[in-house]
This record gives sequence, structure tokens and C-alpha cells, in this order.
Amino acid sequence: MEKVTPRILPGFMELLPADQILFNDMYDKIREVYESFGFLPLDTPVIELSEVLLAKAGGETEKQIYRFQKGDNDLSLRFDLTVPLARYVAQHQNDLVFPFKRYQMSKVYRGERPQKGRFREFYQCDIDIIGGDDLDILYDAEMPAVIYHVFKKLGIGDFTIRINNRKVLGGFFASLGLSDKIEEILRIIDKIEKIGKDKVVEELVKIGVPEESTDKIIDFITITGDRKQMLESLRALGVEDESFVLGVNELETVSDAMVMFGMPEENFRIDLSIARGLDYYTGTVYETTINGHPEFGSVCSGGRYDNLTGYYTDKKLPGIGISIGLTRLFSQLRDNGLIAPKTGSMAKVLVIPMDKDVLPYAVQTANTFRANGIPSDVYYGTKGMKQKMKYAARMGVAYAAIIGTDEATNGVLALKDMNGEGGQKTLSVEEAIEILKN
Amino acid sequence: MEKVTPRILPGFMELLPADQILFNDMYDKIREVYESFGFLPLDTPVIELSEVLLAKAGGETEKQIYRFQKGDNDLSLRFDLTVPLARYVAQHQNDLVFPFKRYQMSKVYRGERPQKGRFREFYQCDIDIIGGDDLDILYDAEMPAVIYHVFKKLGIGDFTIRINNRKVLGGFFASLGLSDKIEEILRIIDKIEKIGKDKVVEELVKIGVPEESTDKIIDFITITGDRKQMLESLRALGVEDESFVLGVNELETVSDAMVMFGMPEENFRIDLSIARGLDYYTGTVYETTINGHPEFGSVCSGGRYDNLTGYYTDKKLPGIGISIGLTRLFSQLRDNGLIAPKTGSMAKVLVIPMDKDVLPYAVQTANTFRANGIPSDVYYGTKGMKQKMKYAARMGVAYAAIIGTDEATNGVLALKDMNGEGGQKTLSVEEAIEILKN
Repeated sequence: MEKVTPRILPGFMELLPADQILFNDMYDKIREVYESFGFLPLDTPVIELSEVLLAKAGGETEKQIYRFQKGDNDLSLRFDLTVPLARYVAQHQNDLVFPFKRYQMSKVYRGERPQKGRFREFYQCDIDIIGGDDLDILYDAEMPAVIYHVFKKLGIGDFTIRINNRKVLGGFFASLGLSDKIEEILRIIDKIEKIGKDKVVEELVKIGVPEESTDKIIDFITITGDRKQMLESLRALGVEDESFVLGVNELETVSDAMVMFGMPEENFRIDLSIARGLDYYTGTVYETTINGHPEFGSVCSGGRYDNLTGYYTDKKLPGIGISIGLTRLFSQLRDNGLIAPKTGSMAKVLVIPMDKDVLPYAVQTANTFRANGIPSDVYYGTKGMKQKMKYAARMGVAYAAIIGTDEATNGVLALKDMNGEGGQKTLSVEEAIEILKN
Repeated sequence: MEKVTPRILPGFMELLPADQILFNDMYDKIREVYESFGFLPLDTPVIELSEVLLAKAGGETEKQIYRFQKGDNDLSLRFDLTVPLARYVAQHQNDLVFPFKRYQMSKVYRGERPQKGRFREFYQCDIDIIGGDDLDILYDAEMPAVIYHVFKKLGIGDFTIRINNRKVLGGFFASLGLSDKIEEILRIIDKIEKIGKDKVVEELVKIGVPEESTDKIIDFITITGDRKQMLESLRALGVEDESFVLGVNELETVSDAMVMFGMPEENFRIDLSIARGLDYYTGTVYETTINGHPEFGSVCSGGRYDNLTGYYTDKKLPGIGISIGLTRLFSQLRDNGLIAPKTGSMAKVLVIPMDKDVLPYAVQTANTFRANGIPSDVYYGTKGMKQKMKYAARMGVAYAAIIGTDEATNGVLALKDMNGEGGQKTLSVEEAIEILKN
């Protein structure tokens, strides 16, 4: 038979079991924290009607969409989880309780040119809170509090959640007489970490920002200091624009609340250069960086939006959301040696019957292990003992429970520590359970 | 702004939160059992190259595929998890340890005409075991043992796992001189529960089975009896075909082992009418029915295959697999009232601060709850107490922890049982934790 080379598309992450276990462990930890804060699960379709999904899209986004025809339907694969959320909330608004807190941790699709660190299929782990009519500013502080617990639990090193407020930025640009250029300026300064100060100035000039204003913008977004100092510096500017004043107040309320929520000051700071490229943000915005790894970029971003559902419903549904790009984060952490698989086995113990006669006892032992919460595998092959032990070693299981005629007769087993440290001991099943439970 | 009607495609299941919690609970239970048997997680891409994914497909399957062009690539969405597994194993055979036990619980796509009980996007929950060169017949018994534990854990009522063996069927048809029609006959008799005996006979005649043989076939596949009786009846037929004899021996070994694995006899039986439509099965085959609900059809099916990876590699990789169609099963159970949501809340308790002054204490209380493993939500809105309690009631949370100035001052809280049974009690945080943990 002619063979087809088994392969996947570039830009798709597919893992070997040990890495997949590690990935799932991160996934499960994020989910656990999200649920501990009461976020409800959601699972929207991967395929949506293009008319619905792309109601708002355009430009760069639209080019990346996997879009196709099936029968009479013009279909698209979702490119994020935010637009499907907007559609879902608008569609089911009468059945939902607001504030509606939901998480979704699913794959999204972007047909980008594949390059290192860019994926065409990747997991986003989103939380959003949608208000019924309004949504208290304190929810803006709950978001980073959740993320703080997530990153603590992931245990992947120190991190900084950087917050800003779009009203502060917009208000400041307006005070420079640049009201008509706010969105363009936001998109340009959002790139400062990637392209540097000079390029930002260049691009600002290009869109018609006067040179004296570019200096002021750069000075502004590079103001540094601790939380209190930043707020003082902002107020000391004497900007009277209404949006600016409101934004500074929000920034103060949110950052004060973050402290109240138990976040250590070293894990967050106000950073006026955080703008976020997406145009639907209207207030608080977030980015998160792993300390010592600026090259990772932001690993968790989001913000406040006033009206995400405007394409689907007249009802105003303000919300706030934040998202972890898990596939990318995982691949960065792994490629930089910050995480590594601990095991390639899902079972804690491999039960090895030495011959067919002891099978019933071996199976019963494995069942007892499982009933005690210990994931257990049994080797049913008829190979020799050496082959069986080699299998246990290769699969990376922590323990082997070897059962021969003597063990079966006496109702015991020989528990072998596969890392060699504990050697091999003859134990009762109950004794083995105690060891395997740790 | 002109509005787009928010909606999804027919044939896609999207749930409200309470149903989604229920669905996830089933998903998690299946996953837990799969992992307890040592199956490794796998997560293959949704999009594959058509050349690779459709190496084997054809006919009905191919028509259902979501297939499209993106750039230079001819792409398809996976229609099951078995073909991607074959591709994965062939591709990574040098990095895997055999027998390779994996589970995958993911969405698959079939662009069928939507009808009740048929989905275009649905979860399959698969386990498969792939042998390196051979795979012991005992693994054929482990599959239903796993499924037995899954259905026990799901607690959705009595069920019967029905097993058969393709060699028995093929051997019997060969003994009737129908060697050249085996696959066609299998496909026809597989439909007997749907179309009935008469239609089966009609279709058999249509493909050229002599009338005397159709009677024999019907008599054969409707043999009944308990496990021992069935095996006796099969042997009493005196069929000498080699495949038949081997198949009967396999059926005996597998069913004996199922008893050894601890499966009660009432949860499985040999059923000679089980054929499975797919042509890659070569030995043991399974179907599972919920007792009293034949209209659900088989909720969990699978079988033994000798060479699934033949399109990708010369190495022979025999395996065995079984799959639960979770989306369909969930929708059937729900629509028939066999399952129902218990709660629409992910949080066990909603902490309600009566005013802004007690916020720090309220937040701290929620943090303490979470640190003790109790999912907790806090209401941050500024609405009146009546509104806050209404929110707690509507969200379906089991308890509300009400905190006013007195509670904050005294380091206590008023815990209200939202189901009304326990009323409202002033408790210390520690006392509340004890109650919430149950």
C-alpha cells in the first residue's frame, strides 16, 4: 500500500504524552482557580456563522480567519473567545443572571504565517464578567486577583501584573489636542516594548502628531514609581480633561482594591505604556509579564469594555475580561526550561503479574488500588519478566507491584520503587496503598 | 447600529451554565476513570491536512467532512479521534512506549443534515490501546471493564455492554460459502435493531445471499442465552471454519476475563447481532445500551483492529478502542429527564458585603473559604440588600454569607441556607467552613 507521510500542519502544537500531562496539569490548575472564584463554565461551538462571528471584525483579523462554505452556509472558525461570548450573552440574556461570570478554556484558530511562538491553533483561558446594566469598578480588581492566584498556583516564577486605564491615556492625548487620533496613538504606543521609543516617535509623527507632543507622550508613558507615586505624578500634571480625571480615580480605586484583595505590591504595578491594541477597551487594561523574561511578552492580558455586544443587541452589557494564552505560555516555558515533565505515566503503579495464574489476584489488586484513588495500570502481555520491567521503566511509572505465585498465595506484593531509592519490599496491599498515596 | 441576530448553526450543542456544569461533571467523571486505568492524555489538532486525514476515508464519511482551502493547503476538520490516533502513533512510534494506552476527549465534526440526536460538533471520549507488535487478548476485556466503571460512576442507570467477535461472524458467513460478501453482510446485520428482521433479509437477498442462507444468518444472530449457553450453542453448530473457531475461543477468553475483572454478569452479554459498521474491526466488538432505553442506540462502541495505521506506516500496530459519544448521550439523558442540573452556580457560597466599609473583611472571608477548597463568589455591586439576596437566589448558590458592620467587627458572618432548610445562623468563619465543606 502506498503510504501517506503522517504529519500535522506547521503552527499546530501536538505533544508527546509526558508534555501533554504537564500541559493538562497547567490547564487544570487554571480551571481550578477560575472555578474557585465562581466563574461558570462555557463551551461555545468552534464553528460559527461568518455573518455572526465577523459582525465586528475587519482588517488584519479577517485575513487570519479560517473561513469556508459548507452547503449554503458561510462559516468561520472562532479566532478568540470574546466575540462568541458577546454573541452568547446577547443571545441568552434573558436566561442569564447578571453579573454573569464565565470562564472558557478552549482552542481558537488563526491562519497566521507560522513563526516561532505563533500558533494557528491555541488555547485561550478566558474569564469575563458581564454586568446587566452596570458593573462595579471593584470587578476590575477581582480580575487581577484571580490571575494572581493562577500564577501563584502555576508556580512558574515571579510575575508582574501591569495595569493602566484607557481613560487616562485618552484623556491625556485629548489634553494635547489629539482627540481625533486617540485610537491610532494607542495602537502605536502599545508596541513600545517591541519596537522601542524611537520607532514609536517616528510612527506618531507619521500620523500627524506634532513633535512637541510626541515628547510629551513619551515622557508620559514612561513615568515610573510605585503605585502611590504614580498616582501623585499623574495628578501633578494638572490635566483637567474629564476622562483623564475619571481614569486616574479609577486607577486609584482599582489598585487600592488589588491591595485589599490580598495581592502583594511586588506582583503588580501601574504602567502607563500599557495600551492594548484592541479597540473595544474603554477603561482598566492589564498585561502580565514573567519577571526576567520580557521576551515572552504579555502572557495574560485584558481589560474593561463598555459595549462588546453592540453588534447583536441594544441592551448595554458592560464587562471586563482577561485571558491567558496557554499554548504559547506553555511552549515558552518549556522551551526555556522553566517547566519540564515529571512523568510520562498517568498511572502511579504498574501491576505486573508474573504469569497467567496470578492474573485474578493482580487484577483485584489493581482494582483495590483504584478504589483507593491510586491510578493503576496492569501489564497483560505474556513477555518475560525482563521485558515487563523494561516496559515499567520506559513508561516512567513511579512504582511496580510485582506479583508471583508466592505473593498471590500470601496476599502480598513486591513493591519496587522504580526510581531505585526505596528498593523492593514485600508488602500487604494495605501497606502498599499507604506508600502509593504519597 | 444595525444588529446581527445572535445565533449558532443547527446541529451544534451550546448549553446554559447549569447544563454546562452538569455536562462537565460527566466529562470529568469519564476522564477520572480513564486516568485511573493509566490511559495517557492526547490532544491532536482539530484541523489536519486532508491528504493525511482522508487517506482512508471515502463514500459517506467524505461527504460529511468540513473540508476547505487555506492558502496552499487542503484542510479538513477531524471527523473522529481514531484516524488522528493512527496518524499520531505512526508519526511518533519511536517516541512512544507500547502498549500505548491513550484517552482523548475532544470535539469532532461531521457536516451531516441536522436532525434530532445528530450533532455536527460533538465530543467523543475515546480510549485505545495500541500494541507494539502484538496486543494480548486480555486488553479486549480491559476495555469493557473501564467502561463498566465509567457508567457506574456516571450513575445514569443500568446498562448492558454487549460483546461479539467479527471472526465468529465472518467465519460463520464463510462456512455458508459467503466469503466474498462478509463486509456487506456485516453492514446489513448491523442495522437489525433499526430496520428489523424482514428488512435485513430483504437487503441480504438484494446482495445475492441465497434465501436458505438468510434464514441461517437470522437464526444465528438471534441466538440467545447466558454467556456459557451462547458459547455452547456456537460450538454445537459444528462450524469448522478456522476463523470461526478462533473467534469463539476469543469470545470465551474475553468474556471469562470480564468476569475476572470484576464485572457483574448482569452488565454484559454476548450478542451475535453486534457487527459494527466500520470495516477496520477484526475481532472483539462492543456496543453499550442503557437498559430500558433501546431508542438511545449504542452509547459506547468499539472493537479490536489489527492494522489501523497501514496507510501511514509499514509497522503493524494492532489495537483496541472504545468510544463514548458524550454530546449525544448527554442530550438523550437530559431530554428524557434521566439527568437534571443540580445547580446553576459554580460557587458554593456567595459572600455579600452589606456596605463598602465591610469589603476588606468580606474579601478576606472569601479568600479564606477558597484557601479551604470552597469555591466562593463575592457580590461587589452597590445595590440594596433585597437586590443582593435576589441575585443570590437567582444564581442558585447553596449559601449566602452576609456580612454587615456587626459581623465584620465581631469576626463572624451570617450564613444563610438558600434552600431555606437551615435558615440563617451567625457563625465564625471556621464554623461556616465546616458547613460549607459538606
